[in-house]
Amino acid sequence: MSSTSDGPRGSGAGPVGIGVAGLGRAFMLTLPSLLKDARFRLAGGFDPREEAMRAFTDAFGGGGHDSLDAMLADPAVEVVYVASPHELHADQACAALEAGKQVLLEKPIAESLEASRRIVATACRTGGRVIVGPAHSFDAPVLACLDLIRSGRFGKVRLVQMTTYTDFMHRPRRPEELDSARGGGVVFSQGAHQVDIVRLLAGGLTQAVSANAGNWDPERPGETAYSALLRFRGGASASLTYSGHGHYNSNELHDWIDELGWPRAPEQAFGARHRLRQGLASTDELALKNARTFGFAPIPDAAPENEHFGQVIVSLDGADIAVTPRGLTIYDDERLTTMPLPLPEGAGPRWPVLDAVWNMARGGPPAIQDAAWGHATLAVCVGIPEAAATDRWLPLADQVAVPDHPNLDQPETET
Amino acid sequence: MSSTSDGPRGSGAGPVGIGVAGLGRAFMLTLPSLLKDARFRLAGGFDPREEAMRAFTDAFGGGGHDSLDAMLADPAVEVVYVASPHELHADQACAALEAGKQVLLEKPIAESLEASRRIVATACRTGGRVIVGPAHSFDAPVLACLDLIRSGRFGKVRLVQMTTYTDFMHRPRRPEELDSARGGGVVFSQGAHQVDIVRLLAGGLTQAVSANAGNWDPERPGETAYSALLRFRGGASASLTYSGHGHYNSNELHDWIDELGWPRAPEQAFGARHRLRQGLASTDELALKNARTFGFAPIPDAAPENEHFGQVIVSLDGADIAVTPRGLTIYDDERLTTMPLPLPEGAGPRWPVLDAVWNMARGGPPAIQDAAWGHATLAVCVGIPEAAATDRWLPLADQVAVPDHPNLDQPETET
Ligand SMILES: NC(=O)c1ccc[n+]([C@@H]2O[C@H](COP(=O)([O-])OP(=O)(O)OC[C@H]3O[C@@H](n4cnc5c(N)ncnc54)[C@H](O)[C@@H]3O)[C@@H](O)[C@H]2O)c1
Ligand SMILES: NC(=O)c1ccc[n+]([C@@H]2O[C@H](COP(=O)([O-])OP(=O)(O)OC[C@H]3O[C@@H](n4cnc5c(N)ncnc54)[C@H](O)[C@@H]3O)[C@@H](O)[C@H]2O)c1
Repeated sequence: MSSTSDGPRGSGAGPVGIGVAGLGRAFMLTLPSLLKDARFRLAGGFDPREEAMRAFTDAFGGGGHDSLDAMLADPAVEVVYVASPHELHADQACAALEAGKQVLLEKPIAESLEASRRIVATACRTGGRVIVGPAHSFDAPVLACLDLIRSGRFGKVRLVQMTTYTDFMHRPRRPEELDSARGGGVVFSQGAHQVDIVRLLAGGLTQAVSANAGNWDPERPGETAYSALLRFRGGASASLTYSGHGHYNSNELHDWIDELGWPRAPEQAFGARHRLRQGLASTDELALKNARTFGFAPIPDAAPENEHFGQVIVSLDGADIAVTPRGLTIYDDERLTTMPLPLPEGAGPRWPVLDAVWNMARGGPPAIQDAAWGHATLAVCVGIPEAAATDRWLPLADQVAVPDHPNLDQPETET
Repeated sequence: MSSTSDGPRGSGAGPVGIGVAGLGRAFMLTLPSLLKDARFRLAGGFDPREEAMRAFTDAFGGGGHDSLDAMLADPAVEVVYVASPHELHADQACAALEAGKQVLLEKPIAESLEASRRIVATACRTGGRVIVGPAHSFDAPVLACLDLIRSGRFGKVRLVQMTTYTDFMHRPRRPEELDSARGGGVVFSQGAHQVDIVRLLAGGLTQAVSANAGNWDPERPGETAYSALLRFRGGASASLTYSGHGHYNSNELHDWIDELGWPRAPEQAFGARHRLRQGLASTDELALKNARTFGFAPIPDAAPENEHFGQVIVSLDGADIAVTPRGLTIYDDERLTTMPLPLPEGAGPRWPVLDAVWNMARGGPPAIQDAAWGHATLAVCVGIPEAAATDRWLPLADQVAVPDHPNLDQPETET
C-alpha cells in the first residue's frame, strides 16, 4: 500500500476543501468514500444541471457555486475534483491550475493527446499538482501488488495478463460516450483503467503496442472490445483484453463482487442490454444516464469490499500474483498463499486515491498517477485502435517510469 | 457434440484393433478412456523400452510387437496410434499410411512444417485417414461449443479469449522437450492444444499472428510462455496467453478440476518446480520422466470429469460462451444459462476422440482434426515465436476451414 498520511485521518491543518466540477455519475461513485473520510470536506460544487445544484445545497448545507470561475475564486476550495465529461477535462483542469488549485482529474486525463499535453504543460508551468483518478490503478490490491513487486522478493515482472468483461457499452450513455472521435468507446474510458494498472505493475515504460480492436454491435458505435499486446522497457510484456458487450462478466472470477466493491447476486451482472432496451422504450438515453447522477439518484452507501477491474495475473521470476478485490494471491514455487486486504475500518473502497489527494494537498509524497502519467496511459489507449488499423507494432512515446520498479533498476534486459 | 457412431458402442464389425507406437506418458493418458470403450481393443504395441513391452504383454495378454514394421504388418492392427516423441511422428505416421493403416497421431502433428507437409502428402496419396489427437479440441465441451456456434443461434464468432497457466515446463522432460529447435517448449506441445481450440471455434482460417514469446526461466530452456493475437477470415479475432511456469494455475478457474478431468485439492496444482528439484537431487530427469510412462507407473483410472485447457471465452454477436470441464455457460442479452455436460455413463473423458477414431475406422463422418488441420495448427504455433522475433503481423498459410462455421458462410466481413 502506498505510504499514507503521517497523522491519523482528519489531523493536520484541518480537512482539505474539495470543490467538484461535474456532479454526475463519477462524482456519485467517489462520494461514498469521500463522505466517510474526515480528512475532507465538500467545500464547493458546480454543475450546469439545476437539480444537481439544488441537491448539492440540500445535502451539504450550501457550498454550491454558480460557475466554475466562482468555485475557482473560492479560497475554501483547495483541490478541484474535475468529474465532468472528458472533453471538458483539459479546460477545467488548466483553469484550476491557473487559479492555484490542485486537481483530482477523472480518468481518462482527456479526450486527446493534444489536450492531455496541455494539462501536463500547465501543471509544469504553474507548479500545481494533478492526480489522474479515481482509477482502478488506485485499488488497494493493485497498490499492494506494486509494493510486493517493488520489494524485489520475486525478481522482475515478466508478464501481466488482464481480462476484463463488463456491460460498459450497454449502460446508459451520453452521445459523446459512443463516439470514438470524442473519447467514446471502451478504449478511452476503460482502457484508461486497464492500461493504467498494467503500466503500474510492469514498470510504466511502454515501448510498443500491437492490437485488435473492434465493434460488432450494431446498437452501439465506438470500439466495444479490444485485445492488445504491450512490450515494456525492462523486460515485461502484457496481454490485455477488454469487452464491454454485456454478456460474460469477469465479476464471475471474483466471487461476483462487482467493479465497485459490491457483492451482487450473479443475475445482477447480466441483462444490461435488455434493461437499456426496455428503458429506451419509454424515455431517451440521456434521461436514463442522468437518472444515475447526483440530484436524481440517492447517495449510495460505500461498498464493503475493494473495487477491481477484472482478472489480473502478474508473472514475476519467482511467483505469479493474482490481484482480486479480496486481496492478493501469491503462487510461488511451492504453494498458494493469500494476502487478505479488507477495507480499513470506517473507510470506503476509494480510500487509497483519497490518501493520495490528502498527500497532494498537505505536502505528502506524490502519487505516481500524475498528469504526465495519465498522458502516458492515454498515449497507449489511443495507440490501441491505431495499431489495430495499421497492422503493426506501434512505438509509443511520452512514457513515464514507475519509481523503484525492479525491472528498471538494472541495465535494460529484454527477453 | 460431434455426431457419434450409428450403433451403440461395441456394435458394427467388431471392435477396432488399435496398435500403439510409443507406450509413454501420452499413451498412459489415453489408455483409461480406451479401456472403458468396448468399441476398441489393443491389438498391438511397440516401444523400444523393454519394461514397457513386458508390461504391455502382462496387461493385455500379448499383442506386443518386436518392431514398428512387425506391428504395421499385423492385419489385426487397423488404426495405429502414434504416441512417440514429436520427431518420430512423420516417419511413423507415413509408414503406417503406406502400410494401409489409419492413424491416430499425437499432437503436435510433427516437430516442423516440413515434416507435417510430408504427412499431409502421404495421407493424400495413400487415401489413408489421419486424426491428429487426442488434443483438447476434442474435449466434449469444446465440441459442444462448436455445435452451438454452428447452430447460428448467436450469429458470428467475434472474439475468442484463452488463458492457460500450467506447470508444463516443470514436469519431468526429455532433453528434446526443452529444445525449441526440436519441437520443445510450450509453443509446440501446448500451443498445439490452444491454437487447435481457438481455430476450431473461430472458423479455422487464421490470417495472421502477432505475438510476444519468452523465457525468463534460467532452469528451463525453450519458450516457456507466450501471448498471441490472431486474426481469422470471417471476422473473428483471438487472444491467447499460455504460461507453463508452474506458478498460477488456471485450474483455479474451473473449481480445481485439472487438465485431465480430475478434481484435485488446490495444493496439488502447485509445487511442480519444487518437486522436480527434489527429484533431481536423487536421480536424472529422464528417469523421472520415464517413471510416469507405461511399464513403470500403474494404469490410472479414467477421470470423472471432462478434460479442459484453461479459460476459454467465446464472444459471438448475441452471446458469450464459456467452455468449462463441467459444460458450457452461455451469457446472452438477458441472463446466464448453464449447459451441464457430464461424461456419458461408462465413458472416460477422451470419448469424443475415440468416437472420431471409430468413425474413421468404420467409414463414419470425418473429424475436422485431420492431417491438413494439424498442419494448419502447427503453422500458427511455429508462427508465434517467428512473429515475436520479427515484430510484425506474420501472415499464415495452409489454413483449413471449419465446415459449416457461421463466420464463413457469408461473404467475408472484417471488423
Ligand atoms: N473513476 C470512475 O469510476 C468513473 C466512473 C464514471 C465516469 N468517470 C469519468 O468521469 C467523467 C464524467 O463521466 P460521468 O459518467 O460522470 O458523466 P455524467 O454525464 O454522469 O456526469 C458529468 C456531469 O458533468 C456535468 N457537466 C456538464 N458540463 C459541465 C461543466 N461545464 N462544468 C461542470 N460540470 C459539467 C453534467 O451536467 C454531469 O452532471 C468522465 O471523464 C468519465 O470517464 C469515471
Ligand atoms: N494428448 C496429450 O494429452 C499428450 C500428453 C503427453 C504427450 N503427448 C504427446 O505424445 C507424444 C509423446 O510424448 P510423451 O510425453 O508421451 O513422451 P514419453 O517420453 O513419455 O513417451 C514416448 C514413448 O515413445 C517411446 N519411443 C521412443 N522411440 C520409439 C520408437 N522408435 N517407436 C515407438 N516408440 C518409441 C519411448 O520409449 C516412450 O515410451 C508427444 O508428441 C507429445 O506431444 C500428448
